[in-house]
Amino acid sequence: MKINFSLLCAVLMVPMIFFVPILYTQAFPKQQTEKHLVEMILALLIGILCWLFFGYFESFQVGTQNTLPVISRSFGPTMFVQLDFFLYALVMFTGTAIAKHSWKFFVSFVPLWTLLVYAPVANLIWSPTGYLAQLGALDFSGGLVVHLTAGLTSLVLALFIKRPQNPQGSDNALFKYVAILFVITSWFGFNLAPAGSWQNYGSLIVTNTLIAIIAASLGWIIPLTDQNKPVTLDDLVNGILTGLVTSTAAVGYVSPLSIGIITFVSGIICHLATHFTNQTDRLYDAVDSFTINGIGGLIGTFGLILMANTKINHGGATGLIFGNIRFASVKLLAILVISGITIIGAVISLLATHLVTLRKD
Amino acid sequence: MKINFSLLCAVLMVPMIFFVPILYTQAFPKQQTEKHLVEMILALLIGILCWLFFGYFESFQVGTQNTLPVISRSFGPTMFVQLDFFLYALVMFTGTAIAKHSWKFFVSFVPLWTLLVYAPVANLIWSPTGYLAQLGALDFSGGLVVHLTAGLTSLVLALFIKRPQNPQGSDNALFKYVAILFVITSWFGFNLAPAGSWQNYGSLIVTNTLIAIIAASLGWIIPLTDQNKPVTLDDLVNGILTGLVTSTAAVGYVSPLSIGIITFVSGIICHLATHFTNQTDRLYDAVDSFTINGIGGLIGTFGLILMANTKINHGGATGLIFGNIRFASVKLLAILVISGITIIGAVISLLATHLVTLRKD
Amino acid sequence: MKINFSLLCAVLMVPMIFFVPILYTQAFPKQQTEKHLVEMILALLIGILCWLFFGYFESFQVGTQNTLPVISRSFGPTMFVQLDFFLYALVMFTGTAIAKHSWKFFVSFVPLWTLLVYAPVANLIWSPTGYLAQLGALDFSGGLVVHLTAGLTSLVLALFIKRPQNPQGSDNALFKYVAILFVITSWFGFNLAPAGSWQNYGSLIVTNTLIAIIAASLGWIIPLTDQNKPVTLDDLVNGILTGLVTSTAAVGYVSPLSIGIITFVSGIICHLATHFTNQTDRLYDAVDSFTINGIGGLIGTFGLILMANTKINHGGATGLIFGNIRFASVKLLAILVISGITIIGAVISLLATHLVTLRKD
Repeated sequence: MKINFSLLCAVLMVPMIFFVPILYTQAFPKQQTEKHLVEMILALLIGILCWLFFGYFESFQVGTQNTLPVISRSFGPTMFVQLDFFLYALVMFTGTAIAKHSWKFFVSFVPLWTLLVYAPVANLIWSPTGYLAQLGALDFSGGLVVHLTAGLTSLVLALFIKRPQNPQGSDNALFKYVAILFVITSWFGFNLAPAGSWQNYGSLIVTNTLIAIIAASLGWIIPLTDQNKPVTLDDLVNGILTGLVTSTAAVGYVSPLSIGIITFVSGIICHLATHFTNQTDRLYDAVDSFTINGIGGLIGTFGLILMANTKINHGGATGLIFGNIRFASVKLLAILVISGITIIGAVISLLATHLVTLRKD
Repeated sequence: MKINFSLLCAVLMVPMIFFVPILYTQAFPKQQTEKHLVEMILALLIGILCWLFFGYFESFQVGTQNTLPVISRSFGPTMFVQLDFFLYALVMFTGTAIAKHSWKFFVSFVPLWTLLVYAPVANLIWSPTGYLAQLGALDFSGGLVVHLTAGLTSLVLALFIKRPQNPQGSDNALFKYVAILFVITSWFGFNLAPAGSWQNYGSLIVTNTLIAIIAASLGWIIPLTDQNKPVTLDDLVNGILTGLVTSTAAVGYVSPLSIGIITFVSGIICHLATHFTNQTDRLYDAVDSFTINGIGGLIGTFGLILMANTKINHGGATGLIFGNIRFASVKLLAILVISGITIIGAVISLLATHLVTLRKD
Repeated sequence: MKINFSLLCAVLMVPMIFFVPILYTQAFPKQQTEKHLVEMILALLIGILCWLFFGYFESFQVGTQNTLPVISRSFGPTMFVQLDFFLYALVMFTGTAIAKHSWKFFVSFVPLWTLLVYAPVANLIWSPTGYLAQLGALDFSGGLVVHLTAGLTSLVLALFIKRPQNPQGSDNALFKYVAILFVITSWFGFNLAPAGSWQNYGSLIVTNTLIAIIAASLGWIIPLTDQNKPVTLDDLVNGILTGLVTSTAAVGYVSPLSIGIITFVSGIICHLATHFTNQTDRLYDAVDSFTINGIGGLIGTFGLILMANTKINHGGATGLIFGNIRFASVKLLAILVISGITIIGAVISLLATHLVTLRKD
């Protein structure tokens, strides 16, 4: 039963990896769509190679008996679930990068980032032998491993990209709609996969995911009412995405009421943060990956720190509002360590890549 | 096994809920696409909330031991299968409504409609404690619960909508094609889900669904040959949709030959009915939800009354052509009760909504 | 467990059947998109009927106890997996045919082709009672049964189609991208389905499929570097498709290294072959079905002949490089027999169709 459950989740997660690039093309002029699709496909193909040859080994085998990063016949569907998580993290910051870099950038940046950022972080918190995992840090479906790493990597990249004079987007409502709907559909796989079976709080996870979508959309819309603006498709897409991202850290560990509060707050904050970064000239993140993935992932993690509840999930933790300071301390340490690894690793990957490839502008 | 089967069906049903709105945008001018997508997404989000907070409870818990409409951790995938059915019913009449109403209409109409129409009907015929269920009424995957309710609700709404002078549609063949293909794919989940497992007549259901698509398309094309018109994509989309809708009431209870006859006849009748309502000024149903869902669901139910066969499904019924008058009487009662509830409930929901919101025109 | 696994694969395979037509519309002018979609949908509906009424019986029941081609309630999900394989073969050559023929062509050609080509070939090599199967010929997921038959049928059709003066394609990058991504996603079902369960080398199959995509894309790109051309989306789509097609014959029987070599070589050869056939006036295959499916399927089969390894799959075979001449001889016989049946069957189907329908030009 567990095999078919994991396999279903792994398969279900595939479309989101491919539809996020479609959302991202819409942040750029229509004439660049094909070019950007080619760049993101190539980044994904490079990422798959990295995962098969060393990423999975570094993430989940270091510290175990296995000593060779071989492509094995003996892995279960979990390896492919983990490949999906990794590719999703990867695809999110490619949207930030393609504003400046060609596909050649990814030939060097993706392997370095896998080696220095994603795999070490996944090992620390998701591998049973990882240091943070052994301290008791939790991350249900990637609030830290997937979204914080991707968001901070986008931030590092965005700091070195100049905002164009008149940034123009494409405006294909039907494609945006199809993209977000497959992202939603896939996210049920994303949030269910770490459970390993439906009996392991599957109903809670699906309910929480649905509530996250709704509460974050509502939160995202709140600042609009101030400005008397109508709700656009972009608002709903961003609100839904914020809800999904924010849900990941805590979705299997907190009650539906808690996830509603966390994602509602996240919707408001991520909207304001996105509004702010779109004004500044300090950085240029065309696809808002930093403010949605980075900040969303962080807010979800703070929500987990506050509201984790072993009455909801016996394998979870007890949150700060129930008086548990130890879990909060461990999680804060995890945030610091992971942020540090991500920022340092992303900067090194960026510098090393600039040494071997030409800059685009 | 049953859990993974139901989960697979629940997941498989998701795309159709989201792709029907794409089909529906094509009935309106291109400039309104984004606006209509926003309206239908918001209607769906409101619907999800209603289902989680009282819809599922009212449909399946009233009459049982559970006394509180709580969001529970203990529900199986069936709750989400039922959510899919509910959202599909909901999305079908939104297409009729958006010709006149803004998203604010749904804030009041959707909760009322869930409370007064869908949940009572689902309880009557699908809950083991329901009155019609206990009489022996059957509805395999929603010919009455989903399609007749949605279709009659569209009729009620359409009677209060004025046909625009020159109704214009969008004409995006590729999107229509993608939408219908995902509707077909999802419908295998829709028709299989009530079985609960493949062993429970799964092969019959898939075979009957395939035959329904083909026979109804053929039926839909027949009136064209009279007029010497070529077969268009719209004809195939409507024919396939009619076949799928018509199949639901009977798909698990009749033989492949019977489903072929029923859906072929339905294709012809629904085509003629659609042609007729598109001429009249009495009502305006831009997306033909009444003639396809309402009439299609009804014809499928009459097919079940006639051709149900316990040799095909031991848990089914014996039809009128095999001499069983009792089952026919119960089903006629079911049609009358459900039509009554739907029309009265939809009218009340509409009037109450007009009291609290402004009319669009 | 096996039922849910097969059902998941059968469902997963559905999108590729419907998305290949979208890829194929892009080879023709935009104004013909709707017409071509209608033609290919009708071909698929006719194909489903043929499969239900005699195709499955002829493929898998001839030689067994069953004597009647009935639509049975007792088939497992395997029947629908096999329907998917059959429809995929069918849809591939429709792309070649629609350059010249209307949908009426398929009314006669599809049943004849099913009867004379696909079902006999599937019986010979995939039915336990088939002659080639009993000799020990292998074809994991259709390198011969699906791709060689479709590719050679395209060749036969293409020889009778005149190249238009200025063949023009549509250029919808987003649709091409969505189509190839669903083809990739579905192909995991395509390659996993014959395994019957994940435990039966599922991990090897997924790994090999991923490597096939990457290696063949790389191979396809190689000839571009010679000409100093940029990588286009069409190159990636064709490269990925070549990798998937080539993988099928051998994917469950060879090591990841072997599949990498086979698909890399196939990428180069299929690119050059496609380039060549696009120059000649001898034939017109607008969608390159012969060079990608026919030659790709053949190269994959030669790869299997060379590199099959019972150390990788105990139920497989030993290849020529490990000194096994018998398996190579059997496979060469299979290629000859299947090519013969396909070419003769396709020619007969074509001639008979021309006798009953009018030619389009």
